[in-house]
Amino acid sequence: MYTQRLEKLTRALKTSGMDAVVLNPGPTLTYLTGLNFHLMERPVVMLFSATSEVTLVLPELEKLKAEALTYNASVVSYGENPADWNDVFRKTVSSAGLDGKQIGVEPRRLRLLEYNYIHAAAPKANFPDASDVLASLRICKDADEIAKMQKAVQIAQNALEAALPLVKIGMTEKELASELVVQLLKHGSESEMPFAPIVSSGPNSANPHASPTDRKLQPGDLLVVDWGAAWEGYISDLTRTFAIGEVDAEYQKIHQVVQQANAAGRTAGKPGVPCAAVDKAARGIIEQAGYGQYFTHRTGHGIGMEGHEEPYMRGDNQKLLEVGMAYTVEPGIYLPGRNGVRIEDNMVVTQNGSESLSDMPREIRVLG
Amino acid sequence: MYTQRLEKLTRALKTSGMDAVVLNPGPTLTYLTGLNFHLMERPVVMLFSATSEVTLVLPELEKLKAEALTYNASVVSYGENPADWNDVFRKTVSSAGLDGKQIGVEPRRLRLLEYNYIHAAAPKANFPDASDVLASLRICKDADEIAKMQKAVQIAQNALEAALPLVKIGMTEKELASELVVQLLKHGSESEMPFAPIVSSGPNSANPHASPTDRKLQPGDLLVVDWGAAWEGYISDLTRTFAIGEVDAEYQKIHQVVQQANAAGRTAGKPGVPCAAVDKAARGIIEQAGYGQYFTHRTGHGIGMEGHEEPYMRGDNQKLLEVGMAYTVEPGIYLPGRNGVRIEDNMVVTQNGSESLSDMPREIRVLG
Repeated sequence: MYTQRLEKLTRALKTSGMDAVVLNPGPTLTYLTGLNFHLMERPVVMLFSATSEVTLVLPELEKLKAEALTYNASVVSYGENPADWNDVFRKTVSSAGLDGKQIGVEPRRLRLLEYNYIHAAAPKANFPDASDVLASLRICKDADEIAKMQKAVQIAQNALEAALPLVKIGMTEKELASELVVQLLKHGSESEMPFAPIVSSGPNSANPHASPTDRKLQPGDLLVVDWGAAWEGYISDLTRTFAIGEVDAEYQKIHQVVQQANAAGRTAGKPGVPCAAVDKAARGIIEQAGYGQYFTHRTGHGIGMEGHEEPYMRGDNQKLLEVGMAYTVEPGIYLPGRNGVRIEDNMVVTQNGSESLSDMPREIRVLG
Repeated sequence: MYTQRLEKLTRALKTSGMDAVVLNPGPTLTYLTGLNFHLMERPVVMLFSATSEVTLVLPELEKLKAEALTYNASVVSYGENPADWNDVFRKTVSSAGLDGKQIGVEPRRLRLLEYNYIHAAAPKANFPDASDVLASLRICKDADEIAKMQKAVQIAQNALEAALPLVKIGMTEKELASELVVQLLKHGSESEMPFAPIVSSGPNSANPHASPTDRKLQPGDLLVVDWGAAWEGYISDLTRTFAIGEVDAEYQKIHQVVQQANAAGRTAGKPGVPCAAVDKAARGIIEQAGYGQYFTHRTGHGIGMEGHEEPYMRGDNQKLLEVGMAYTVEPGIYLPGRNGVRIEDNMVVTQNGSESLSDMPREIRVLG
C-alpha cells in the first residue's frame, strides 16, 4: 500500500515539475510511510525525490521507528547535541543532490525549524508550495479509508449517546467535555483524539470555536457539542445542538433553520458539482430565513486523517467534487451574546450523489 | 498578570535589540495573553513590538476570543477567502511600521504558513531566532505556576494508581493506554492532554518513543508507562517501569541501576549548578554499571506549559540552574529487541537544592 502511495507521489512530482518534497511529522508523512512522529524540538525530516529516492533524518532515539518502513530509504540519525545537526542535514541534502532544485513544502505543516535546516543545506534550492500536489494524493478516499472514517463516526455517535443521559442542569461545560472524552475512549477511540470536544452553552454557544468553560448548564440554554473520534489514523468530526429544558421560540426556530440548511448541504454534493454549490445550498436556507449575517463561517471542510483538509466548502471554491472526496457539512447560526446552533455531519461523495457517514438524530433534543 | 508579562517581554526585546516578535498559537502566546488558539489552516498571528504595541490577526470566527485580552491590542480579523489574506497582513504589518526591522521568531513553533504572510508583508525585515529571549520569560516558574504543575503531577499519579489494579496478562498496550486516559480525565486532567501516554511492553519498551500497540502483556515483560496530565495550562510528565510477573535477573538489575541514576539526577540540581551536572550525575551511574551505550537520550528537559522546553539536561549544556526552573529527570536503559526501563520525575529548583513534585514509588512493582 505504501509503495503504491510512494509511486503516486513520484508521478505527481514529475507532473508538477518539482524535484522533491520535504515533509515533517504529520498526516501526509504518515499517509506515505505509515510512520507516526510527534512534532518535537528535535527535527524529523523526510525527503522524497521525483526519482523515488527517500531519505529520513531523525533523532537517534527515534531510529527504531524507521524499521517499519515498507520500502527502501536512507535513514540518517543524529545525536542529542543541536550543534551537530546542521552538519548532518548539510551532508544528507548534498548527497541527495538537491541543492539548486525545486523542493516542495507544506507551509501549513513545515516549521521554520525544519525549513531552516533544509534551506541552510540547500541554499540555492527553491521551495515551492506543494500543498495542492500533496493534498491531491489524499483527497479521494478509498474503500478502506472510508471504512475507517465510518468506524470513527460510529465510535463518536455511540460515545455521545452514552454521555447524554448524564447531562443535567448545573453540570459545567468542562465536566460534560471530560465525560464525553471518557466515553469516546471507552467506545474505542484512539487515545490521540482528533481535537478536544467543544461543549458550549448559552452565550458561549454563540462562539463557533469556544473551549469548554466552568459555566454551568442552565434552563433555557442551547448546548452545542462538537466532537469526534479517531480510528486507525482516520477521524470523525460531528456537531449536534441540544436544548436545556425549555428554550425561547427564536432558539427553536434557528435550530430548525440550521437543520434545514444541514439537510440542503448534505443533498447538494455529487460528482462534478463544485464545492461552492454545497456552501450555497446550506447558506441559501439560512439567508432566506433572514439569518445570513449570523452564519459566519464556511459550510465545511475536507476530512480524513485531519480535521481540516481539502476540499473546503466555501462559496468561492470552484473545485469539482469527485467520488471518494469526504467533507463536513456544518452550517450554524450564532446570535452574539445569546445562543448559537450548529449541526455537522461527515459526507462522502458516491457515484450518484453523496452519503452521510453520520446518522445520529439531528432534531433538537431536550436534556437536563 | 498578563500586563506584567507583556512588560517583561518588552524589556527583553529592548535588551536583545529586536524591534518585535511574531508569534503563532502555542504556549508562548498563551503565556503572554491568556488566549488559546489551535494551529489551523487559517493563520493566527500576534505581533508584539518593543514599544509595547500589540497586534492580533485572526479569522473572523475566532474574533470573540480577543475580548479576553487584558491589555490593549489592535485586533484585525479576516474572512473565509484565503485570496484576501495577503492584503490583510500587508496592511497590518505596514501600519505597525515593521518592514526593514528585526522581527524575532520561534522556529520550533512558527510555520511557513504564518512566516510567508509576514515575510511578504515585510520583505526587508530580518527574522532572527527569538527562542532564547522568549524561553527566558517562561523558564523560571513562580509559585502559582509551580502549584499548577504540582496539581498536574498529583492528577497523573492518582490516575495511574487507579489504572494499575486493572493491569493483567493478555491486556494490550492500547487498552491500558486508553484506560489510563480515562483515569486521567476522571481525576481532573484537562481534556487536552500534554501528550498521548506511552505504554510499551517487552521489546517495545526498548524503544524510548514507542506508541502503544496491540501487543498483549506477557509474563516476563517490563512495562514502561510514560504519562502526564494537564491542569490550567501546566503539565506533568512522569514515567514508571513495572514487571509483568517474574522478570529476568538482568531486567531487575537494569531497573535498579536506572532507579539509582534517577535518584542521583534528582539530587544533583541546585541554583548555580549547570544543567550538564544533572545529566552527568544520572549518566555516571549507568556508565559505571556498564550500560552507558544503552542510555541513548539526554537525562531530561524543561517542563511547564510544554512537555519539552528550556532548560535541557544535556551533558554539553552549561546553562546554570536558577530558583524556579523546572525539568524532568528521566534516565533509561534500552536493550534493543529485549526490554527497557525509564524512571522519570518532575523537579523544581529551590533556594537550597531541588525538589521532586512527584513521589509515586519508584521501586519495581510486579503487576498482572
